[in-house]
Amino acid sequence: MKYSERISSMQSSPIRKLVPMANKAKAKGIKVYHLNIGQPDIKTPKVFFDAVKSFDNEVLEYAVSQGLPELITSLQKYYTTYGMSFESDEILITNGGSEALLFAIMATCDPGDNILVPEPFYTNYNGFSQSINVCITPITTKAEDGFHLPKKDKIQSLINPKTKAILLSNPGNPTGTVYTKEELYIIAEIAKENDLWIISDEVYREFVYDGLEYTSFGNIKEVEDRVIIIDSVSKRYSACGARIGSIASKNRNLIVEILKLCQGRLCISTLDQIGSTKLYQIPKSYFDEVNKEYKNRRDVLYNELMKVEGVICKKPTGAFYILAKLPVENAEDFVIWMLTDFNKDGETVMACPAEGFYATPGLGKDEIRLAYILKEEDLHRASVLLKEGLETYLQLKKENKL
Amino acid sequence: MKYSERISSMQSSPIRKLVPMANKAKAKGIKVYHLNIGQPDIKTPKVFFDAVKSFDNEVLEYAVSQGLPELITSLQKYYTTYGMSFESDEILITNGGSEALLFAIMATCDPGDNILVPEPFYTNYNGFSQSINVCITPITTKAEDGFHLPKKDKIQSLINPKTKAILLSNPGNPTGTVYTKEELYIIAEIAKENDLWIISDEVYREFVYDGLEYTSFGNIKEVEDRVIIIDSVSKRYSACGARIGSIASKNRNLIVEILKLCQGRLCISTLDQIGSTKLYQIPKSYFDEVNKEYKNRRDVLYNELMKVEGVICKKPTGAFYILAKLPVENAEDFVIWMLTDFNKDGETVMACPAEGFYATPGLGKDEIRLAYILKEEDLHRASVLLKEGLETYLQLKKENKL
Repeated sequence: MKYSERISSMQSSPIRKLVPMANKAKAKGIKVYHLNIGQPDIKTPKVFFDAVKSFDNEVLEYAVSQGLPELITSLQKYYTTYGMSFESDEILITNGGSEALLFAIMATCDPGDNILVPEPFYTNYNGFSQSINVCITPITTKAEDGFHLPKKDKIQSLINPKTKAILLSNPGNPTGTVYTKEELYIIAEIAKENDLWIISDEVYREFVYDGLEYTSFGNIKEVEDRVIIIDSVSKRYSACGARIGSIASKNRNLIVEILKLCQGRLCISTLDQIGSTKLYQIPKSYFDEVNKEYKNRRDVLYNELMKVEGVICKKPTGAFYILAKLPVENAEDFVIWMLTDFNKDGETVMACPAEGFYATPGLGKDEIRLAYILKEEDLHRASVLLKEGLETYLQLKKENKL
Repeated sequence: MKYSERISSMQSSPIRKLVPMANKAKAKGIKVYHLNIGQPDIKTPKVFFDAVKSFDNEVLEYAVSQGLPELITSLQKYYTTYGMSFESDEILITNGGSEALLFAIMATCDPGDNILVPEPFYTNYNGFSQSINVCITPITTKAEDGFHLPKKDKIQSLINPKTKAILLSNPGNPTGTVYTKEELYIIAEIAKENDLWIISDEVYREFVYDGLEYTSFGNIKEVEDRVIIIDSVSKRYSACGARIGSIASKNRNLIVEILKLCQGRLCISTLDQIGSTKLYQIPKSYFDEVNKEYKNRRDVLYNELMKVEGVICKKPTGAFYILAKLPVENAEDFVIWMLTDFNKDGETVMACPAEGFYATPGLGKDEIRLAYILKEEDLHRASVLLKEGLETYLQLKKENKL
């Protein structure tokens, strides 16, 4: 039996492919600290569970396709605290940020079209696009520049008649980069001049450190008719298992078009929507504590990493990822070696090789992504293990023992 | 700003487009009995809510992409009661039956390919397909034949090199038709001879009446490598708001391919999966009561309908729909008239015009779909209202007063 080309050509998740090796290490009794995935350990706010548990209808009915009105209202109020104002018919609730992204690409691109995406990028952007026959044109960014964007003309040179949108995550996954206001305005200009949509994945909006100012594409009035904002409760409220995302756009006709896709899949989980309604009502001060926690974690991990000579990485200012260039040829070999050959007092660390975050062949081969999602004590231990592991690995390489 | 062609060409839901008229009737104080949508009023089994409410992890984490192992185990056991045996790696949990269908079509068809579907069909088949640039080739069936399939050569004549799959729902929505074992074997033969996949939407598997034998494509060993079974808890356990569907196939390589799509959207709602695990453990006897209820409802509605001269409809034997041909030119006009001009003691009925269930232009114009999802007392009242409304409408037409 033959499968479609679109599915055959899709890669398996690069984040998940080393899982069997981690499992083998665990089977040998080794404790593995997971810095490879973005699953936060922060408690999901209790209001979520309380709301779900107080549901007392006898029939769990379909919800409306655009999303529960009370959730949309919560989201509208949440946006106003960031200086954005969306009417209730400018918001759609989706199956996680994932479906929001898929629908945004479907609504803007036909097969054979392409979208510009700064690389390294969230690996599933590739998957979504391939499954609907849309290509990603990478805008390459570099560790040395803190993964900030190249100059305007460099970006513009990548545009062709089949380019329909610019997609970017801000703060960035896997880079932790927070784009400056100036960068956003350059993207806005390019979008206007070339009639492109801007798909802005802002699921890490709150995770910005060092007192940095955060600008959303929802704050740039000049392009409001072409901006599509993607959000999700997953990271924001540590509710990854709730699968509640959203699309917001001042382009109401676009929302009407995407609503057809929403109607096609009928609706989103009623209970998760009820819980998420309460999440978006949590006062902004909630993030003060969470942010302090993440900032400390970042510092711990970053400082340990910087102790190793040859590691290249600007201190990231957002999300909860560090993408670092290592003084090795093949970072995946190092990640595997940490799981198969290294341990200290029965403990090791799992990182994520970064090659899968790049579309340009060969790039990212010497980079790893680390997620600082463990509580400080564990993260401290993991950081020291990573540093020592890397030093040992480099020493063995130097001695030609690997 | 330009939208993609694939989304511009999609229709809005024909089921939902008359909702504003129903709302207007309600605003005038008229009670509207909804026979237009398949939202059952049967109570969702309490085990679902109990399981959800007993969840006590502090973090609502991502679930694994293929679905919670305990849910997959429940589903495996459920299938054995229908003589089907699936290994745990032959099942994937999806965002409702909708995502299961979308993924099955994505995995088997590239843009420009087509799938054979008996029409009238579940209208969202069209939406899913269009959004990924796959066409539906209708196999026309008729009210006069109880919407059973045409002869083998007629079906085969529709196949071309771009045909990749046959998709059918059994029992059928919107027809309520249960295919015979012979019909299934003919489809199986055609699939084998033409190297086609069989996507079998069996979400109404339990809703079969009059002691009829039900055959699943999962029972036909000769084609097990090309069969993809779609299921959902929505109608089966009256849990439409849970959004838990599944894909099962003995073709393990296909499951590996589709898993890539599952990984792309990370996972399905954790809480809904926990609740659904308990649903699939409910003993089969649960359906005895439910089926008796639905069978009675069907009889009430069918018998009233048959009192009107000129209505053509064979008594359906499955699901909870009746598709009837009315002695009118335009059934949508009648449905609208029922909402805008008819009421008896302040009550009326909303039906669903059937044209949207057909791909062939012009077909279904004189047909309506009725869902018998109200409790018997209400359904009885609704049936009488429908009959009287239809008689009045036909009389007014005859007198040229409309």
